[in-house]
Parts: sequence; C-alpha cells; structure tokens
Amino acid sequence: MKILITGGAGFLGARLARTILKQGALSGQEITSLVIADLFPPPTDLQADPRVSYHAGPMLEQQALFASGFDGVFHLASAVSGECEQDFELGLRSNLDSTRALLDGLRQAGNAPRMVFASSVAVYGPDASNPLPDLVSDHTLPSPQTSYGTHKLMLEYLVADYTRKGFIDGRSARLMTVTVRPGKPNGAASSFFSGIIREPLAGVESICPVDARVSHPVSSPGNTVKGLITVFEASREAMNGRLALNLPGLNVKVSDMLQALENVGGPAVRQRVRFERNEQVAGIVANWSRGSTAERAHALGLRPDASFEAIIQQYIEDCQGPGYPADALKGLAR
Amino acid sequence: MKILITGGAGFLGARLARTILKQGALSGQEITSLVIADLFPPPTDLQADPRVSYHAGPMLEQQALFASGFDGVFHLASAVSGECEQDFELGLRSNLDSTRALLDGLRQAGNAPRMVFASSVAVYGPDASNPLPDLVSDHTLPSPQTSYGTHKLMLEYLVADYTRKGFIDGRSARLMTVTVRPGKPNGAASSFFSGIIREPLAGVESICPVDARVSHPVSSPGNTVKGLITVFEASREAMNGRLALNLPGLNVKVSDMLQALENVGGPAVRQRVRFERNEQVAGIVANWSRGSTAERAHALGLRPDASFEAIIQQYIEDCQGPGYPADALKGLAR
Repeated sequence: MKILITGGAGFLGARLARTILKQGALSGQEITSLVIADLFPPPTDLQADPRVSYHAGPMLEQQALFASGFDGVFHLASAVSGECEQDFELGLRSNLDSTRALLDGLRQAGNAPRMVFASSVAVYGPDASNPLPDLVSDHTLPSPQTSYGTHKLMLEYLVADYTRKGFIDGRSARLMTVTVRPGKPNGAASSFFSGIIREPLAGVESICPVDARVSHPVSSPGNTVKGLITVFEASREAMNGRLALNLPGLNVKVSDMLQALENVGGPAVRQRVRFERNEQVAGIVANWSRGSTAERAHALGLRPDASFEAIIQQYIEDCQGPGYPADALKGLAR
Repeated sequence: MKILITGGAGFLGARLARTILKQGALSGQEITSLVIADLFPPPTDLQADPRVSYHAGPMLEQQALFASGFDGVFHLASAVSGECEQDFELGLRSNLDSTRALLDGLRQAGNAPRMVFASSVAVYGPDASNPLPDLVSDHTLPSPQTSYGTHKLMLEYLVADYTRKGFIDGRSARLMTVTVRPGKPNGAASSFFSGIIREPLAGVESICPVDARVSHPVSSPGNTVKGLITVFEASREAMNGRLALNLPGLNVKVSDMLQALENVGGPAVRQRVRFERNEQVAGIVANWSRGSTAERAHALGLRPDASFEAIIQQYIEDCQGPGYPADALKGLAR
C-alpha cells in the first residue's frame, strides 16, 4: 500500500507517519511506501525508514506527485488559523488552491484512493442568527468565524463532491484542539491550551490569558492520530452518508486542566501558571466551541481521551521520544 | 451608483437589470451606470439604455473590469446544475474560479462594494445521516447532492469570509426554483416545473415526468428579482449575523400547479399535460427539497408569491414583453 501524508513533517503528521509505520499496515494491507509532502523535510527518524520518501516544497508544485498513484492519502497540510488571518492570500493559496491541486492530481491518477482530510472544530462559530450550542455536534450548522475555518468547511464539501463523483473515496475528520503540543509558545490564540501544561512541566512560568471557567474540546495527539486512522479504515457504508464528522473531544475547563496538572505533577507545578487576561485572546476564544459531541465517530468506535490526567501522562511519555527537548520535564519533581 | 450584474444577459439577470433601470435607484441612490458581464451580449432593449454597458466573455478574463470600482454587484453568472454534472471541470472553473476572480477584483478595488450572491435551494440535499426535513429552513444543515449545489454552498461561505474581512459587503440569497421560465424545454431536471405551464398555454402538449404529489418550493421571476433587490438594500444589521438566507418559496405540489393552470386557463389547457414517469428525472427530484421556509427573508419583508395562479398570471403578462414568442399564449382561449 502506497500512502501519502501531506503535512507529514509537522508535529501531528510525523506522529501519524510513525504510528502507521509502526503498525505496518492500514486496513490489513502492508505499507510498502509512505510519501511525505511538506514544505520542509520530515524528522530524521522518519527519513531513516526505508519505506519513507519525501518531497519538500509547496503543494501547488506537486501535482505530478499527487497523480502518481497512491492507495491512501492523509491530507494534513494547511496554513493555520493565525497565518490565514494575517495573510488572506496565503490562506487561499495554501488551503483552497493547494487542496484543489491535490484533489485534481488524485483524480488524474484515476484509482479513486481513500483519503482523509483533516478538518477542524474551527468550522463552528457563533453569529447573531446562529448561536453556538453548548456542545457542537455533527448536526450543528457551521458558521466559521475565521478564514481557516471557512477554508476547512469549503474543502469538506469539495471532498464530498469529488467522492460523490467517484474521483476519490474521501472523508473529513474535524480535529479538536490538540494538546499537549511540544515546542515554544507561539502567537496562535490556542497556544495556551498546550502552554499551561508544557511550560510548568519544564519548570517555566506560563500565563493563562483566559478565565479558568473557559471550556473547550481537546484531544491528545495520540487519540487524534487514532481518529485519523480509524476514519481512514472505516468502510464507506460505516460512514453512513455525509462524509464529515467530529473526532471525539474531551470537554474540559481550564480549571479542570490545571487540577489535572496538580494531580499529575503536584502543586508546585500548577503554581507556575499565572492568570493574566489578554483581551484579544479571550475575545477570540469566546467565539470557540465550549465543547463537542462526536456521535458519528462514536459509531466507528472512537472515544475521547479518558481524562485530562491521561493526556498529561501521554505528554510525559512523549517527552522520552524524538522531537522533545531534554529539559522538557525539568519542573517535574520525581 | 455604478452597478455590476454578472449573468446579466440571462433570463433572470436581464429581468433584474430591467427592474433596476426602471426604478432608477437602489438604496435611494441613482443608478448612473449598469454594467452587464456575461458570456453573451444582453437583449437589445438593455443595450439601448444609455446607462447600460456590457462585457461579453468568460468571467475569468474580466478581473480588471471587476476591479474598476463598482458600488454594488449582483453575482448571478453560473454554470447550471446539469452542466456541472456533465463537465466537472467546467463547473469548477465557471463557478468556483470565476467567483474567486470576481471577489479578488472587488477586493482590489478597495471600496468594499455591496454584493448579492445568487445561491440556490440546491445547497440542500438528503443523505443517510442527515435526511431532509419536510421544509428546509435557514437553520437546516446543507448536504448538497450535486456539484452545482456544492459550489453554491462553498461560495456562500467564501462571500461571508470576504465580508468578515471587510473586502466586500456581501450576502447570499438562496433562490428557489424559478417558474415560469420562457423558452424551450431543456435537459435540466427542473425543466418541467416551467414546461407544464408554458407549453399548454402555447397550445403544445407537455409531459410531466414525476408524480402529481411531488412538492417543491417555487418562486416567480418577479418575486425572485424583488428578493435579490431587497437583500441588496438590506442593511448589514438587518441581515442579523449569518449572510446566507433562503428567499421565500411557494410550496406547491404538481397537482396544485395543474389546478391553478385550469383555474386560469380552463380545462382544455390543463388537459395538454400528460403524465409519463421518467425514472431518471424522478430520481433526481426525489433528492430535492419538498418545501422551504424563509424566516430571515421574512424579517426583511419578503413573502412568497401569493398563489400559483398569481405566478401564472405574471407569466401571461410577461408574454407581452421582450423575449417572449408571439405564439406563447396561443393555447389560451380568451
């Protein structure tokens, strides 16, 4: 089986690649080739796997690659929310146009490959005539409030139409906010959902820019990758009609996250989180889903992470693996 | 006020142009210039108006025109449902790419013009996990089952995002099936919604390919044009959040339409309609909305046509105007 992962050099894409390579098969078929398409080369552990090859560069230049005949595709490459807000044309190009290039390449290949498109909980948003429900569900009418969410939603429908026409066998999985991500705090409004766990564990102070009562659906990297693979392996019949679905999210308040941090790491770790309201971030987050359900993913056997403690434990274990700094757990007295 | 109508040479676009020219103003501002962009030149009565100019050719080649500084835009140009199903790339180009060219041109102009995008009731469709309700409403989750409906829905969201960013002041009006259209029967599955009225009035037999109990939301050309103008003139506040809305439809059964035909034209006219089931057409129509509501349009003061008799009467009056053949009412004994 020849697999393509776009965005496969990023945090989530590389984890997906490692998981697929480790299990060695998808849908019971052996992985003979895994191709990563991303702006930059994948981590060295992936490059070292003889089944892996990579193409570094913009997706818009890779249509010949896309048309080369894949059996399965995970499309994760995307300009992220903050980038799309800052640079409108970059968003159109990196999301809409690049996905069109991918879809048209796959269509040219003519073998109707299975494809999972990584969509996002960002398709949901409130407006005056369509307020957000307490929990967004597969049946909630999306009103995206960012260009990123707009592109994701548009592409879900395009993936469905290419599938209806028989050009691909596509489906769209709406990712919840993935936490705990490694790396430095960045400008993304959601950065603090990882930062308030990651920095205290590294012995560094972290600022929480929103109220402790803020609630949000989150998912560990491991459970998110499991969701992508399960949606890939689901039969068309099991998808039961509409091809977009929410992946499961654990609906947590910031206060729950910090209590879990204390339960796992002790009070000294938790005390490294300081609340300092940032009106801009708080304003953006106020437009986000407070929680989600995932009825259709549930029918495929998917579940949210068991607890936020389990999410933190996963991060602590991850810190032993590639891509994590040596001092990632310096703040954890053990 | 300088107005652009894309698709302004077509049946509905030309009617919109005539209505705007006749009333002489939009939002209380005088119409000084009305530009029609379409694949072909507009009817001669429009060409004769000194306020009218036209640009014939593909929209993809007209970005300079679009960037030339309009105060208001009605975007009606589109490849229709049957065309998009037959020629997938034509649909992508004529709908998605052409609208991108328009939006980017308007954005370049920098004056955030008011824009109405003509969307369609075709955004709605059934699937296994999202059956159609009896009446589709502004709150119904769309599941388009055609490329045409897919493109319309995607573009509604793109129009909303360009508006959110302040590049245009856009809104999307979902048109119901427009009847009675002039012209010959064509290959469109919806053709019979006009044909079963138009042909008998001209003294010609018409075949109804679906059961008399089939129900559908329809709108007269006049009421549809009124809807487009009202949505154009509505303030941003009156739009109340989400920028896409259903225009009002009169929910009628085929049997109601034929009863109205008899009421207006007498039994001999009605008897020119013969039922002969066409499985292909009936199968397509089975995926269509059986009726609609239009809560948000209602709040703007819009209403469905008063009755199907009134829709037929409008057609009979239209037959005196430009674009209708001399024998259009040959079958009507008066």
